[in-house]
Amino acid sequence: METALSRLLPAADIAPQRLHDAMRYAVLGGGKRVRPLLAFAAAEVSGADPERVEVAAAAVEIIHAYSLVHDDLPCMDDDVLRRGKPTCHVQYDEPTALLVGDALQSLAFHLLAENELADTPFIQLDMVKLLAAASGSRGMAGGQAIDLESVGRALTLPELEFMHIHKTGALIRAAVLLGARCGRPLSEDESAALDHYAKCVGLAFQVVDDVLDSEADTATLGKTAGKDAAHDKPTYVSLMGAELAKAMAADLYRDAVEALEGFGDRGLRLKQLADYIIRRSH
Amino acid sequence: METALSRLLPAADIAPQRLHDAMRYAVLGGGKRVRPLLAFAAAEVSGADPERVEVAAAAVEIIHAYSLVHDDLPCMDDDVLRRGKPTCHVQYDEPTALLVGDALQSLAFHLLAENELADTPFIQLDMVKLLAAASGSRGMAGGQAIDLESVGRALTLPELEFMHIHKTGALIRAAVLLGARCGRPLSEDESAALDHYAKCVGLAFQVVDDVLDSEADTATLGKTAGKDAAHDKPTYVSLMGAELAKAMAADLYRDAVEALEGFGDRGLRLKQLADYIIRRSH
Repeated sequence: METALSRLLPAADIAPQRLHDAMRYAVLGGGKRVRPLLAFAAAEVSGADPERVEVAAAAVEIIHAYSLVHDDLPCMDDDVLRRGKPTCHVQYDEPTALLVGDALQSLAFHLLAENELADTPFIQLDMVKLLAAASGSRGMAGGQAIDLESVGRALTLPELEFMHIHKTGALIRAAVLLGARCGRPLSEDESAALDHYAKCVGLAFQVVDDVLDSEADTATLGKTAGKDAAHDKPTYVSLMGAELAKAMAADLYRDAVEALEGFGDRGLRLKQLADYIIRRSH
Repeated sequence: METALSRLLPAADIAPQRLHDAMRYAVLGGGKRVRPLLAFAAAEVSGADPERVEVAAAAVEIIHAYSLVHDDLPCMDDDVLRRGKPTCHVQYDEPTALLVGDALQSLAFHLLAENELADTPFIQLDMVKLLAAASGSRGMAGGQAIDLESVGRALTLPELEFMHIHKTGALIRAAVLLGARCGRPLSEDESAALDHYAKCVGLAFQVVDDVLDSEADTATLGKTAGKDAAHDKPTYVSLMGAELAKAMAADLYRDAVEALEGFGDRGLRLKQLADYIIRRSH
């Protein structure tokens, strides 16, 4: 995946060099690559060609990377550390970081449109639509807007869930669905099962994130720990306590794995990723 | 076009409401709509269905609107006035304006993928690719990065042109080509002529912009006048003087109109728009 991302990003010696250098800095050399892993795992369900999946996975990861760059900006979370390195606007400057995010978003859609990724151009157009919906105001960006409005406010559990389904869930779901979409068309039942898996795993990921933010230290996380509490942000831990949050993550894990039953061996990688998402330490 | 944009933007009463309200604020109620006009004019060349062109034109205009919102942010041009109204981050707040731009970009690609806009899904995928290329690091965002690097530096005329071909030219070209792409396929000669027209008009637009910024007042422009000189930004006027800049715009106009010769009556709207771009006062 690192090799693929490096190949698919513009080279740092093409003009505008500084922007391209900063785009590469923001995407390469770090990150758990959970979304690409999910795309590849989901591709096993539909028997998709890995060369196609690589590009679709890169598009999702590049959207994720752009969102981190913009999230870290002074007017948002104002963070200086990401993946154990200075954030993009600290390493370069604020206007460059803004443009890095903007240009990465364009690049993601360029990748989805430029390469043959599906059996028909019609399916591929649908992939563009899926990623755009997952990224936009009714997906990730919308979740961030709800997050902004929630700072310092008491959220209910359903409100918190609504926020996370958008903020992180939408893109994780897109990773799973896009990976599968590179292969043979799935039946309605298979699509529904995969979608249910993706939703459970997406939410579990966030619940575990909240637990980690409250319990782990900055060195392990590679990003500033305890910042949710410091910013008075509502989290699963602040709303239900660490123990109940962990129990909720375990329930979601069980749901996710159950959804895979119909896939037999083809669902093995997806199950392993659900394991990893629940057990990860950062 | 206003009706179409209003219909294609998310309604302000759908969650997240504040974000959707701000997205509508940033796009609706102002703007010359030069890019949509160019898309519609180019569509006459290929006999495209106006319902298709409306969506393609909206996608381009929404990319343009997002770029203005991000351009106006404090870390970029730090501007408070746009289209005669407070800029988005002044009217709402800075994090919201950041997300407005991000979500508008996603929306543009969603629109291009969601609706049937071309005779085949293959052509339509190519339209997605064209808009992504025009928006990204080797198009508009790249031009803005070059612009950032040029502040306070003496640019040569070719360097200035390179910047503008990216910063404004790429998206104007995309408007023309996308409008035409909604209709019957053009011959190679027709495509090349249209592309040449688009490039000339795109550059002429910027040269006229520089002249207007140096000569018009804020009330006429609807945005802060004289800000290029105030920011020590290189412009056609600062490099060649107002008279030579006007002569250059006239040359580009003549080139643009010549490129339309093979289209006969089908090129009439495009000629009228070249007239407008040269003669506009704001």
